[in-house]
Amino acid sequence: MPLESLIEDNRRAVAAEPAKARAVFSVQGSLVGLTEVDLRARGHAVTVDEPPTLGGEDLGANPVEHAMIALASCQAITYRFWAAKLGIELDGIEVSVEGDLDVRGFFGFDESVRPGFTSVRLEITPTGPEPAERYQELADAVDAHCPVLDLFTNPTPVQRRVAIAV
Amino acid sequence: MPLESLIEDNRRAVAAEPAKARAVFSVQGSLVGLTEVDLRARGHAVTVDEPPTLGGEDLGANPVEHAMIALASCQAITYRFWAAKLGIELDGIEVSVEGDLDVRGFFGFDESVRPGFTSVRLEITPTGPEPAERYQELADAVDAHCPVLDLFTNPTPVQRRVAIAV
Repeated sequence: MPLESLIEDNRRAVAAEPAKARAVFSVQGSLVGLTEVDLRARGHAVTVDEPPTLGGEDLGANPVEHAMIALASCQAITYRFWAAKLGIELDGIEVSVEGDLDVRGFFGFDESVRPGFTSVRLEITPTGPEPAERYQELADAVDAHCPVLDLFTNPTPVQRRVAIAV
Repeated sequence: MPLESLIEDNRRAVAAEPAKARAVFSVQGSLVGLTEVDLRARGHAVTVDEPPTLGGEDLGANPVEHAMIALASCQAITYRFWAAKLGIELDGIEVSVEGDLDVRGFFGFDESVRPGFTSVRLEITPTGPEPAERYQELADAVDAHCPVLDLFTNPTPVQRRVAIAV
């Protein structure tokens, strides 16, 4: 189905029954090695690990790299959807993400240092036949509607439950 | 190398030369299909896609699922490191993450709805021979030092650059 029709079908479905707008995603995982974690998202299996400098065997990208994979891919896909929505022709998208982390936060060597990224740089290269202003308009629409950019730049409420087996 | 030694080596290295605490991670990707994105993080290749209901061919977990993979794996690995740091015996960790998304935000059907997760539920099951209070102490230490939980719960500065080919 072309994305324009998919967007319009979703708009109609949600207008008729707003509860249909709510999607629930889930992931399950187990620590299976020193730092190896095996996870599942629906039918997809993913292995996350740390490089040897962080105690692992480098069997997969590490958790913060997966967060950047989420951001880069979400930007690319949101460009695709919003190009369709705005009627902007888009031939391709290249994305790169770089993130700075100060490991004193994770290790607890300095409690004034945050454990997460202190700064993230996102570079997007859209290609296509339209004038530059149209891709700038697209970029602004994407940044207002990209789920993972929202996750990075705004606080998200997380409820934690620790189930300790006794 | 046991994690206790790795943590202590890092502590000494960073105390001697604070610049060594700065780590830079990076990811590159390209949109290669309608919603398929091929990405690389160092030597690791990852395919991200959307399910058919969102226009894709389901060739991989989608971007928001990858964000949850990042959170679940980061929690598991941070439990491992902090158990070593606090001298708490840990036999295993199971993690599950569930996130609610209201698709009206992503599609721009309602500009008052945020595009990202409106709510996330994280359930952690640590197992091992220690009394329950020790795992509770561990859980609190983890939540103060987990890089991806910090990313979810606090704003992260993102600088965006759009390189439009002209």
